[in-house]
Amino acid sequence: MGCREADPVRFELDGAILFSADLSPVAEHLKGYVGEIEAGPLQKGVPDDEDGPHVERMEPAGQELSLVIVSGRYVRAHEALLRLRKELSARMGKEHRIGVRGVRIDRYTISFSVPEAPDHPVRVPFATSLDFEGDTAVMTLDDVSEDFLSRNYVDRLVALVREKVDAQRYEGKEEFWEQIWTSTPREMPYQEDPTEDMARRGWVQQGPGKGRWFFRPQAAAVIRAMERIALEEVLRPLGFQEVISSSLVPFEVWLKTGHLKGVANEIYYFSEPATRSEEAWEELRDLVKVTREVPRDKLVGLLDAPRAGMTYAQCPNIYWSFQKRTVADEDLPILVFDRTANSYRYESGGRHGIERVDEFHRIEPVYIGTVDQLVELREGLIERYKHVFNELLELEWRMAWVSPFYLQQAGMAGGGEDEEATAADERREGTIDFEAYLPYRGTREESEWLEFQNLSILGDIYTTAFNIKAQRHELVSGCSGIGLERWTAVFLSQKGLDPAGWPEGFKRFLPELPRGFTFH
Amino acid sequence: MGCREADPVRFELDGAILFSADLSPVAEHLKGYVGEIEAGPLQKGVPDDEDGPHVERMEPAGQELSLVIVSGRYVRAHEALLRLRKELSARMGKEHRIGVRGVRIDRYTISFSVPEAPDHPVRVPFATSLDFEGDTAVMTLDDVSEDFLSRNYVDRLVALVREKVDAQRYEGKEEFWEQIWTSTPREMPYQEDPTEDMARRGWVQQGPGKGRWFFRPQAAAVIRAMERIALEEVLRPLGFQEVISSSLVPFEVWLKTGHLKGVANEIYYFSEPATRSEEAWEELRDLVKVTREVPRDKLVGLLDAPRAGMTYAQCPNIYWSFQKRTVADEDLPILVFDRTANSYRYESGGRHGIERVDEFHRIEPVYIGTVDQLVELREGLIERYKHVFNELLELEWRMAWVSPFYLQQAGMAGGGEDEEATAADERREGTIDFEAYLPYRGTREESEWLEFQNLSILGDIYTTAFNIKAQRHELVSGCSGIGLERWTAVFLSQKGLDPAGWPEGFKRFLPELPRGFTFH
Repeated sequence: MGCREADPVRFELDGAILFSADLSPVAEHLKGYVGEIEAGPLQKGVPDDEDGPHVERMEPAGQELSLVIVSGRYVRAHEALLRLRKELSARMGKEHRIGVRGVRIDRYTISFSVPEAPDHPVRVPFATSLDFEGDTAVMTLDDVSEDFLSRNYVDRLVALVREKVDAQRYEGKEEFWEQIWTSTPREMPYQEDPTEDMARRGWVQQGPGKGRWFFRPQAAAVIRAMERIALEEVLRPLGFQEVISSSLVPFEVWLKTGHLKGVANEIYYFSEPATRSEEAWEELRDLVKVTREVPRDKLVGLLDAPRAGMTYAQCPNIYWSFQKRTVADEDLPILVFDRTANSYRYESGGRHGIERVDEFHRIEPVYIGTVDQLVELREGLIERYKHVFNELLELEWRMAWVSPFYLQQAGMAGGGEDEEATAADERREGTIDFEAYLPYRGTREESEWLEFQNLSILGDIYTTAFNIKAQRHELVSGCSGIGLERWTAVFLSQKGLDPAGWPEGFKRFLPELPRGFTFH
Repeated sequence: MGCREADPVRFELDGAILFSADLSPVAEHLKGYVGEIEAGPLQKGVPDDEDGPHVERMEPAGQELSLVIVSGRYVRAHEALLRLRKELSARMGKEHRIGVRGVRIDRYTISFSVPEAPDHPVRVPFATSLDFEGDTAVMTLDDVSEDFLSRNYVDRLVALVREKVDAQRYEGKEEFWEQIWTSTPREMPYQEDPTEDMARRGWVQQGPGKGRWFFRPQAAAVIRAMERIALEEVLRPLGFQEVISSSLVPFEVWLKTGHLKGVANEIYYFSEPATRSEEAWEELRDLVKVTREVPRDKLVGLLDAPRAGMTYAQCPNIYWSFQKRTVADEDLPILVFDRTANSYRYESGGRHGIERVDEFHRIEPVYIGTVDQLVELREGLIERYKHVFNELLELEWRMAWVSPFYLQQAGMAGGGEDEEATAADERREGTIDFEAYLPYRGTREESEWLEFQNLSILGDIYTTAFNIKAQRHELVSGCSGIGLERWTAVFLSQKGLDPAGWPEGFKRFLPELPRGFTFH
């Protein structure tokens, strides 16, 4: 076995077809019809060496024909039930003037293989029960509607069970990480946490709200200098064009990118007013005027439930803008970036300084082209990033291939047994993390370095999801988020807050710090 | 009369003081005490020529002492009740070992003057009834809690009734508008709606979502050129320093600025996850995976009700950053701007093109200083704006003093009967709108010109609300929102989309349009 498509699977359906009249007078005819249909139409599409669906039991009772149908993967039991209905409807109508009123599935039991029995219980929605017998999962569904079947929920439930069993196998295993390159060590004259230092000097102020910062002129100037460096030293030389994208992402867009499956619990959601009518809002406003508090329960009643969230990464809306488009070959590779949509992630307990925050500012370059074009672009991007981090910012940093372990297992992240064969230039897809040493966190060896930049080629997942095509070529895509707070945190952690100690390459982009304000 | 503070007002309270024992044995003593207290402590603070509170009726019954107290504005009936409790508690405890358990207000009737009887019904929260007898309002409150009184809700309800009566008087009256300056007419070679034209050419794409736009490279380049013009030709020459502010505004901040009273029905609200726990979110994610839809009802259950909204204008968070600060005199005037927080307004039916949208991009200069400093700054800003609009963008536009009619009536907007006395240079506070002619809307005379810029000095409302002080001076503040989509809409409406027709002054900031993309 091994390949899932050939894994054994068994569908057992317990249900009924409902007719417009009592079936007892025609019971024998009915049995004959079912026998004919089972041998004929129900087997259509079943390969020669596979078993088709089988009607294990049938029992007319009143106006109902109770049925038990069992199948393998070909013409699954619920498809067999619908075919049976169609065929019976024709015969019963013509011969006996009895119509079909509908079908009912009381219980649907699906048995399928999983890689191994899970250690912890697995739950999935809709299933009445889910049990494991060795490497076989047995899932039962009660009272299944036709709608449920026609929307293909059954296949997705099977996929979800397998995904959850897989996730348990890889739980606790380390993510793939393989160093590609490292800079030489540099002297680190500064050991403080730069955010704390900036807060003391009045360069930044925490808030308003958790995980958000107000950057006063000095800190704002450093961040804007980082932005100019990214624009002038990385993106413009490579031919990237700027777009301005909305910060708001409708669920339809995230359903295509998968964000709502992956990071639903980290998203900031928003609600528009359900109405703008002055009258509807009068009471809330009056309460605010009288109590000087916001009645949050009343407010919720005036809002539409969320249909969208705030940017988690800018790429989904950029892909949306190319949705169902066919791009001119001479425009390939498409190179764009957005630096206008601000990003939001609910970090909760993980917040720290300006480097791990709920609201941050990123430039997101997105590229769409052939694999060869993007592999070449990646080399160009790495060269520009090296120029910036080595010559302008003079950082101590390194690059590593990274991929979640399960992706690596699934063969999606390149790599393999032979480490020599996984050198950067041989990889076609995958993610490179750029990590920098933060002296305030401890020694180089023992402290966690900060991921301050990444670079991905993501294959065709987004070009397929958004149906983005070229005239002749197969398209893949990728992105390379530039986190301005992260660049700033790394730079200040290594170089400190005294401009006298900053490298000349950086000072070209910020010759003088603004003076800010003095408070008494 | 005339001045509201002296307007007649009458408070009538029907309630009780609750004791720890039956009062019948001490009824006579009680009457004596009440008489003493009414004549003594209850009159403390009442001016000689005014009436103090009066106990109109008292009736011991079981453990309760029922009371009717009537007062004018001095020592209002509910204050009298609390004083009475305190004094009785001392006497009854000492003399009769009977304690006070609490007070109860069954009905509180407040009569006060309004400018005139309203034409339409007026509703306010908490009031059981609100009636008007000529220019007197009679409001009754039932079952009033001590908390309600101590939070000063009564005064705010009176103010709210008066505000609503006032609003009816000014309903339908035109807002104040007085032209200060107008450019010479210019030739208008282009008559199209530039947004429609841009959409046809692929410069912009509507969405994702209503009232939001995706700006492709050509349009993004025009918007960024406008930003550079504002920065280099207006803000930097005047000494403005950049700050980076959060796009998210907690309700506490808006309660200080008044936005939740004024524009609650136009705000985009957001919700953070109530928890980040993977387990709590598992079912929602599973449902998304199986159904490829977002179960919005389940989602709402996983979110915290909104405590904040998205930027309506950037100034509130900027004022917050100076909250409770004392600014050094040599830093005055404080000149800052934010261009990072994106703005959101629920426009609903009012949306049009890129000029009236739900999401837009503004530079917000905020200035805090003495009145003289800000009046001088205003002249400097007007001079720079004139330079930009006349010499660089070559627009046809005008400036006008504007103020909502009721502010003008309340004497807050300068102006008056003598039009000659209202010239710009004599005004200390108020708002100037910059309006431009949009040829696609019709003739100069009959079409509505677009407000594409404003400039306000707002007095001390925000410096007071946020307690912002200088060492020696009284501070006022103002702002001057620069809407980049508005500048762009005005420029393209008058000059068209062909760069050959654009003025040289603008082309200095955008020598060449990016090529964008070709779709097949």
